[in-house]
Order: sequence, then structure tokens, then C-alpha cells
Amino acid sequence: MHISEITHPNQLHGLSIRQLEQIARQIREKHLQTVAATGGHLGPGLGVVELTIALYQTLDLDHDKVLWDVGHQAYPHKMLTGRYHNFHTLRQKDGVAGYLKRCENKFDHFGAGHASTSISAALGMAMARDIKGENFKVAAVIGDGALTGGMALEAINHAGHMPNTKVLVVLNDNEMSISPNVGAISRYLNKVRLNPQIQFLTDNLEEQFKHLPFVGESLSPELARVKEGMKRLAVPKVGAVIEELGFTYMGPVDGHNLEDLIATFKAAHNHNGPVLVHVATVKGKGYAIAEQDQVGYHAQSPFDLATGKAIPASSPKPPSYSKVFAHTLVKLAENNPKIVGITAAMATGTGLDKLHAKLPKQYIDVGIAEQHAVTLAAGLACEGIRPVVAIYSTFLQRAYDQIVHDVCIQNLPVFFCLDRAGIVGADGPTHQGMYDIAYLRCLPNMVLMAPKDEAELQRMLVTGVNYTDGPIAMRFPRGNGYGVPLMEEGWEPLPIGKGEILRNGDDVLLVGYGTMVHTAMQTAEILSEHGIEATVINARFAKPLDTELILPLAQRIGRVVTLEEGCVMGGFGSGLAETLLDHNVLVPVMRLGVPDLLVEHAKPEESKADLGLTPSQIAERVRNSFSPQMAGVNQ
Amino acid sequence: MHISEITHPNQLHGLSIRQLEQIARQIREKHLQTVAATGGHLGPGLGVVELTIALYQTLDLDHDKVLWDVGHQAYPHKMLTGRYHNFHTLRQKDGVAGYLKRCENKFDHFGAGHASTSISAALGMAMARDIKGENFKVAAVIGDGALTGGMALEAINHAGHMPNTKVLVVLNDNEMSISPNVGAISRYLNKVRLNPQIQFLTDNLEEQFKHLPFVGESLSPELARVKEGMKRLAVPKVGAVIEELGFTYMGPVDGHNLEDLIATFKAAHNHNGPVLVHVATVKGKGYAIAEQDQVGYHAQSPFDLATGKAIPASSPKPPSYSKVFAHTLVKLAENNPKIVGITAAMATGTGLDKLHAKLPKQYIDVGIAEQHAVTLAAGLACEGIRPVVAIYSTFLQRAYDQIVHDVCIQNLPVFFCLDRAGIVGADGPTHQGMYDIAYLRCLPNMVLMAPKDEAELQRMLVTGVNYTDGPIAMRFPRGNGYGVPLMEEGWEPLPIGKGEILRNGDDVLLVGYGTMVHTAMQTAEILSEHGIEATVINARFAKPLDTELILPLAQRIGRVVTLEEGCVMGGFGSGLAETLLDHNVLVPVMRLGVPDLLVEHAKPEESKADLGLTPSQIAERVRNSFSPQMAGVNQ
Repeated sequence: MHISEITHPNQLHGLSIRQLEQIARQIREKHLQTVAATGGHLGPGLGVVELTIALYQTLDLDHDKVLWDVGHQAYPHKMLTGRYHNFHTLRQKDGVAGYLKRCENKFDHFGAGHASTSISAALGMAMARDIKGENFKVAAVIGDGALTGGMALEAINHAGHMPNTKVLVVLNDNEMSISPNVGAISRYLNKVRLNPQIQFLTDNLEEQFKHLPFVGESLSPELARVKEGMKRLAVPKVGAVIEELGFTYMGPVDGHNLEDLIATFKAAHNHNGPVLVHVATVKGKGYAIAEQDQVGYHAQSPFDLATGKAIPASSPKPPSYSKVFAHTLVKLAENNPKIVGITAAMATGTGLDKLHAKLPKQYIDVGIAEQHAVTLAAGLACEGIRPVVAIYSTFLQRAYDQIVHDVCIQNLPVFFCLDRAGIVGADGPTHQGMYDIAYLRCLPNMVLMAPKDEAELQRMLVTGVNYTDGPIAMRFPRGNGYGVPLMEEGWEPLPIGKGEILRNGDDVLLVGYGTMVHTAMQTAEILSEHGIEATVINARFAKPLDTELILPLAQRIGRVVTLEEGCVMGGFGSGLAETLLDHNVLVPVMRLGVPDLLVEHAKPEESKADLGLTPSQIAERVRNSFSPQMAGVNQ
Repeated sequence: MHISEITHPNQLHGLSIRQLEQIARQIREKHLQTVAATGGHLGPGLGVVELTIALYQTLDLDHDKVLWDVGHQAYPHKMLTGRYHNFHTLRQKDGVAGYLKRCENKFDHFGAGHASTSISAALGMAMARDIKGENFKVAAVIGDGALTGGMALEAINHAGHMPNTKVLVVLNDNEMSISPNVGAISRYLNKVRLNPQIQFLTDNLEEQFKHLPFVGESLSPELARVKEGMKRLAVPKVGAVIEELGFTYMGPVDGHNLEDLIATFKAAHNHNGPVLVHVATVKGKGYAIAEQDQVGYHAQSPFDLATGKAIPASSPKPPSYSKVFAHTLVKLAENNPKIVGITAAMATGTGLDKLHAKLPKQYIDVGIAEQHAVTLAAGLACEGIRPVVAIYSTFLQRAYDQIVHDVCIQNLPVFFCLDRAGIVGADGPTHQGMYDIAYLRCLPNMVLMAPKDEAELQRMLVTGVNYTDGPIAMRFPRGNGYGVPLMEEGWEPLPIGKGEILRNGDDVLLVGYGTMVHTAMQTAEILSEHGIEATVINARFAKPLDTELILPLAQRIGRVVTLEEGCVMGGFGSGLAETLLDHNVLVPVMRLGVPDLLVEHAKPEESKADLGLTPSQIAERVRNSFSPQMAGVNQ
């Protein structure tokens, strides 16, 4: 059987190990070809090919449910559930999504994109099953990296307390998050993984025998036999910590041996109550280049399969915002030993790996633990350290209460740097950075800023590390800057809450925030061709707003358009509208941004076009909306 | 020495055990007297009197820092740090706060109110110390209940990975959250606590000896000695799970024996790296009534010390919103076995203990684990269960990403019931339910509603459990209803997104949401006395807004006032302002609610008066603001 013939995972039933191995090879081939062509997550999926096949071979997926944590390890799952034939559309607009989506496929039982959610959701389904008196199996496949996320531990704590609720947790232990794992749990798992025969309990026995006074340095033959026997008996206690948490532990099992995997899963399915199967996998398995550089090949832009090298862009691109951020932060940190960068397992994505390489003492990776990251930063700030918390907009949602309770209420100078704010492209709805302006703007003491380009990002980074009055946040987008000249020496912080006028015109006031300032300028050019002259403001700060600058202009010009790359409900434009009304400036306001909907995966420019946010579309919206008045003005 | 002479905790140095025991008695006495008079947290503080004294006796608090998780266990700390003499002002306006506040006292090193934050903050301070090359001790005192919160586990995972970072975690193990603890971790701790001499490792040895073939049923004298020797040696491995997580474990120690506590803390301070001291305490210790009913005496309204009975209100009060909520939910759940109530360790506070008592199978307590609660609910919803997630507004902040990522993006029908929304009174800034409208309104698919009174809460509860199109949230306040007649049979869901007109008038349009509808009506009466006639709308829904109802009225009346008990930035009024501008209805809008500041602890009516939110204040604000036009209209 060829993978292309599989439209339902139950077709794996009854296949021989050799046939399954063949299918594994075919999945790897398609996986590699596709990601090389489209970009996407490479290492995670390659590591779970056999795990997926073995698990599905032992389940009846017409009834049983498998939930994949994060979703970036689910490409083999997608190929086995009817998406092989259009897998080449991976992460393209209207194509197969890069993560899991309930609306894409009935076997995607729970959507994912963020880490650490699968055990909670699986337990919910298992409890629902028992409430309804039904009978099916539920499994969550979770990486060892995702296990550092607090909510996964909350779920284990709850599941382990319910000995009669049958649920299977498959621990895909590849010893990595995106970067090598952080934390004691990971260290423990590695210990178990590396020394399945001699784990901690046995170690203790060894120790104890040594110190028994009547045993001395050499053992009597009888006691030597006791010792060996006990060692043997101790073996099943591998994973004792997990057993203490109420789970039956099975493993570690070789994640690339189908026979062992199938046998272990079968045994696990026969068990009632919570079971954890510990599977040792190799990230990037089967593609030597990825096996050797597991961080570099976690996710990839399109690359050459033979060499593993990224296919260079047709024309050289300006540096990414992340790169400018990291480069500048390193520079600032070199001159200020109190600056400490914090990442939650996103060293490469945020660029903080550069800080790690250069100034390891000023770098902290807490693992996938955004809540802890923020409160740790609050603790550092109490002691006069300048914590720079670099977390993507979408992941900072994880630490919302910590921002409120530990940072804003205490008015502590923590500097939040939100990468991937706005439209993120191929990663889709789970990763869109849409809500940060709205969810941060409502919090007392918080200052919000966004740079119009990569050079202004540098100014704002200087501003943030020098601001000691309380919390401050900077958002910036995924992707490349505009290629504007980067700043050199002699940087001054920006005045807090002050915007700038970029262009003057009497017909309409365009107020842009962050990435949309550039769009506002382009829009103004187009409007100008139609005889409409716009004033363009770079707001710089969403909070506090530069009312001194904006209000008189809004009053005089009489037509306001706000532009932002984020949700318009409660966002930047909403704040400006509030301010106008508070000051009784009653003029038409058009708030442009992302309306109250989910933005699916696509190229950012495709999403922007769909949302009517290209300069020409905006110019047309402005002309249509204001035309009666405009006509009067410009005749 | 008497506690009243202590203005600095270092005064405990050099006191004898007898003197310290005296001070413990004096603290208990003041604690009991104060809480009996003012209300507050009773059990937690009484349980840590000796723990606090012993810890402070072994530290130099001019340099060392102690962080108290949640803060409700910190009353003895407050008395020992200069607040004994005004402790009688506990939880009163301008008096001693019920939780910890950095701005109240220099020994409150980290503010708290929510659980599970202390280890993260302490670790941050310890890391800052090491970065700065300083030398002081940092300790976090955390309850076993708070240890079920994921962020505490994230912090342990991180701290346990840093063997050279000296930090002390004192586990105040009273076997309770507010209610008895949930989860495998708690079960493990109890096992350790109850069997300090024979813990799990020893159990295994027992088992192993039994099965050694050459040992048989009875042991040779030599092997019997081996066994006993090993048992003894196994004792220090109590807490093996914690040791596996990288902490040195010490304990369990009797939390009411000063001598043992002091000895253990001294040993802990001599240790470098992360140490966990496991202290077994009794919640409510020293007040028999509280020891016997630990749930009932976790926190108290004013009560009679002799009997423990609450002092009855001078006049009978209408039922609380929470009570009506719980009563109604039980009724609905009796008729619909698919309704399941979920609490995060707040069974009594939310009233879900009633559901537990009546329909235990339709009740889930996940422990202090809001993130897990929400995603568990999402999993239940996938399987057709109707999860009702009852979490206070302020604590739902903990699960923000789960609401976004697991519920809203997947559009799952999870029903959020946010108790304590708005101004909460004596609990202060950490507990104010200010931000929920703003942080939920910006999320696609979310429906938001708030009842005008306790009978409408019942209608909305019916509405929520019958709404299957996606997520829906209802917010309601702390405290008592208005005494309106509760509903009987035949309840119909409300139409989604529809408000109602409560009063007609041509001069001003008052649009109230939730609790502020009543205020709007009272305001209208006062305005009427001044010749200004208001139309009053009960909006019922903040999202979707009833634009059909509101827009024409706003247009015709020409003056709008929005009233809400929540932050005005991005809140209900902000949404209405957005809608008016989107429809080019350019009329003055006054948005009343909580401005961009923190509301300190006080009686809710005191806070409202401070914020200008009483009916008479609002009437005056309306008259002042609109007076030029009003004058014209009403002459």
C-alpha cells in the first residue's frame, strides 16, 4: 500500500511492520519535499512519523481521538487523514494549514498552535465521554518542551487525581523545545531516557548498600544477589515521579521502532486510568542535516533538499525587525549590565540567541513558561534590573494576569517587546498578533508604543530600557523592515506619548500606528493624485496618546482615519475615538485595521488585501466614505 | 516583650522560645479580634503564626526578603513589620490592606492577591542579587493549594534547573486551598506528610523484599537488619519527587513547633541552591471553631468570637448574586445532565459547592488552575457537554490565552460566568474585576452580557446554557441583589444582542450595562427633578451591541451617556462610541465607569463615590457637561 491510497487512518490496521515502514518512508519523503518547497516545520514532524503510524495502527479512529499538542508535529497525522494529496498546498492561502484546525478535518479533534493545551483538552473529552457513558479512547501527544508550560502540569495534576478516567498521554520526548529544553523536568526526563536501566531509585540502593555498616566495602555473595535482584525490580520504577503524580508510566520506548511502539501502545490501551507513554524520538529523524542541527531545522523557509541551504530570495531583503531588535539589544546590553533579556523558549525566533552568545549572564530562557517569565521579570525589576521580556504578541496572552497583577498594579518597570504583532502570515489564526493593543491599553500604568520602521524600533528600544516609571511595551511585526538606514551612536530616548507629523494636508487626517504609518504615507500619495491632501501622523504611542498634537488637527481638518495592524475593537483607533469624544471633538472617524474576525493563514500581503488594508484600497475607502464632503472641499 | 513593642522584625533575634511563644499568642489574639471585627481572612494567617516568627527569627530582614504567596496568609507578617498598631483598620478604606502591597510597607517585597506568583518573583530577586553580586536571602512562602497553579510549577521547574541560585521555598502545607485541595501533587504531599517515616521509597523496598525468591515469607536475621537499615536510610528521601525537580527537600516539620521550625530554617539557610522546606500547618490553628471548619473559616465577615457565628446584618439583605447564580444553575442542571459547572478552587465563593452537593457528577473542581479549567471546558464542549465556567473576573485573566486560542478561535460553546465583576470592595486592586469587558470584547465570536439585577441574571443563565453558537460570557457583581422577585418556571432565553428601553425622555440617552442600569434609572429620576428627561436603556449585551435600538435614539436625542462598572478604556462605552462613529452618528458621548487608575480597597459605595459614580454625582456630571445645550432644550 502507498500512502497516497490512505484516505482514512484505519487503513493502517492489519498492515505488516514492513508495510508500515514503507509508509513511514513515504511520509518522510513527502514531508521533506513539501517543507523544502513551501517552508514550514521540519524537525517536529519527521520525529513522530513512526509514533503517529503506531498510535493510529492501534486505535479505531472512527471513535478514538488523538490530540496533537502545538500542532507543528502533526504533518504525518495530516497525511494519514486524507490530506496527502493536497499536502503540497501546506501553509498557502486556502491550502492545508500548518497547525491543527477542527474546521479543516474531522480528525483534527482539537485545534492547536500554542503549546501545552492538549492534556487539558483530552481530559475534557475523556470526562465528557464518561459523563455521557460512551466508550472511546482519548490520547494527547505532547512534546517534552510543552511539558514545561504550567497548564500542562495543571492538567497532569488533575488527571493524576482521577484514577478511573482513562486517558493516554504520549510524551514525545525529543529533548528539545525549539531550542534545547530548560528546566528540572526536562533534566529528569533525560535522566530516565538515557539510563533506563539504572534510574534514580537504583542509584539510591547503590548508595545505601555502600553505607550499610555490616556490608562494608565488599558484599557477601548473598547480599550481592539481593542487590542485583533489587536493581532488576527497580527497573519498572523508571518514571517514579510520573507515577507519584498518579499516572501509570510506560517507557521509555524507542520512537523509531514500530514494533516496540505498537506493543507499548497496545499495553497502554489496555490500562484504565491515566497512562503516560514515554517515547524517545529524534527531532528531524531521517534527514541527516536536520538531525544534526535540530534548532536550525525546527522550522524552515524553502530550502534545497540536497544541501539543506535556504533558497536565497530573488533580491536581497532588508533585515528583519527581529534581527534589528536583537542586534540593538545586544549593543545596549553591552553598555548596561543591568539589561537582561528574557525569552520563553523562543531564543532563535526573538533573536535573543544573539544576546545569549554575546552576554550569557544577561540572558534568561525560562522554557515554555510565559507566566513565569513575566513575574520573574517583575522580581528582577524590583531589584533594579532592566528586564526586557521578548515574547510574541500571541504568546504574551499566556501571561495576561501576570502583566495585570504583578507588573501593572505594582507599576514595575518591565519592558515588553512584542514581536510578531499584527498579521503573521502562514502560521494563521493561532499566531496572529491581533489583540495586544486592546488587551494592554486598558491596563493602568501601561505605556504602549510601536515603531514606524526598523530604525524607529531602535529608538524605541532605547526609550524602553531608559524608561523607569513603570511598564512599557513595544510591538513590532513579523518580517523585514524597509531597509531604512539603521542608527549609529548617540541615541536619545523618545519623549513618552509624543507623535510626529510626517506630511501636511488639509483634507483628511491619517493617524497611523506602527507598520501602518508607512501604509498611511503611501495612501496619502494616492489620495494626492486624486486631489485630496492628507496630513499624516506617526502616533508612535497608543498610550498615552498625543492629544496635544492630534486633537487640534482633528478639529481643524474634520476627518480622521486611524490605521493599525490589530483588532479595531478596543484597539488604537478605538482609543483615539475615545479621546476625541472625551474632548467633544465631533468629527467623522474611520477606524481601519482588522475587523472582528479571524484572519486565516496566507501571505501577509494577501491577508491585507482581503481586509482592504492596502494603500490603494484604503485610499478608495477614504474617498468613498468622505466623498460628499470631499467633493465640496476640493471643487 | 509584647508584640506591640515590635516595630522591626529583627527585634525577634535573640528572643527565647518562651518569649517567641508569647508573641505567637499575642499575634493570634490580635488576629482573631481584628478579623472578628472587620472581617477578612481567618484560617490562613492563624496557621502560619509560628512559621512567620521562626522564619523572621532566622533572617536579617534589613537585607533578606520574604515573599508571601496570595498575601492572605500575611497578617502575622503585617503585625511583625510595624502594622500592629493600626491593624484594626484592616481592609477598611485607607487602612491596612488585606493583601500585600509594596507601597504599604517596605517589608512587603512583592504585592500579591492572586495565588502561585511568589516563587517566580523570588527567583527573579535571587537572580537579580546574583547578577549584581550582592548577598542576601530570598524566601517564598507558598501554600500547597497555590502549588497546583501552573505558574508555580513553571517556577519550580526553572529554579530546580539552577543549582547555584540560592532561593528558599517554604511550603505551607495545610492540606487545603480554600476548599480541600485537588490533584495528584496534593495527594503526594499528604502522603509524605502523613507518613514521614515510611514514605514511598521505603514502601517499594518492602515490596521488593517480599518478592525476592531467596527471601521468601520470613527473613533471615541478617536480611531483616538490611531491611531495617535501608528503611532508616530511606527516610531522608522523603520528598524524592521534589528532589528530582532539583530542590533540596527538608521536612516535613511541625509548623507549630517553634524549636523545630527554627532549626530547620537555619539548616535551610546554610544550603546553597534551591531548597524547599515542607511545613505541616493547621489552618485556623489556635481557634478551635476554625480548625474544625477550615472551609467555612478561610475568610469571614464580622463574627462573634465566642460562638464563631457571623454577626447578622442589621436588616435582612436580599440574596447575593452568587447565591442566585448557584441556586439557578443547580435548577437548570437538574433538568439537563449535560450542564457541568467548573470551578478553579472556588467552590464556596462561586456557590458551586451547591452544585457539588446536589449533582456531584455535574461538578468539576480543577484546583487553582484557571488555564486548565478553560481548556478542559473547551474539550468538554467539543463533546457536546455544556460547560459553565464559574471564575471571578479577576482570576479569568489567568486563562486569557486559553479563551483566545482554545475557545474563541475554535468558536466553542463555553459559557463563562464572571462573578465579582466590577468594584469588589475590601479585597482591593488585585481583586477588582475591571478589565473583563475590555479584554473579552476584542475577541472574535465572543458574546458578552451583564444582568441589570438578580432576576435578569437568571434569564441570562438560561440564555447562556441554551446558546450553542459559540462562547458567551456573563458578568455580575460581588454582593447582594436588589431583592427583586426571582423567576419561577417557564424561562425563555433572551434574544442575543437585544437591549430594552426602561424609561423614555427626550433630553439625554443613558445606556447602562449590568449593575449600572439601576444607577442609570436613579440618575434619571434625579435629572427629572431638574427638568431633564432621560431615556434609559438596559443594554444587556456589550457584544453584540443592540445598534438597532441604540443608534436611532442616539441620533434623535443627540446626547449619550454610557454607564458601566469597569474600565472605560476599551470597555462597554468605548464599544458604543465605536459603533456611533462607525455609523457616523456624531453626538456627544460621555463614558462613565472606572477611569485609567487602580481602585484601592474600600467599601464599594466608598469607591463609587470616589469615582463619581453615585446617581447624584452622575446627574451632576451630566448636567454640567451638557448644560449649554440642555439649557436651550429645557427653557
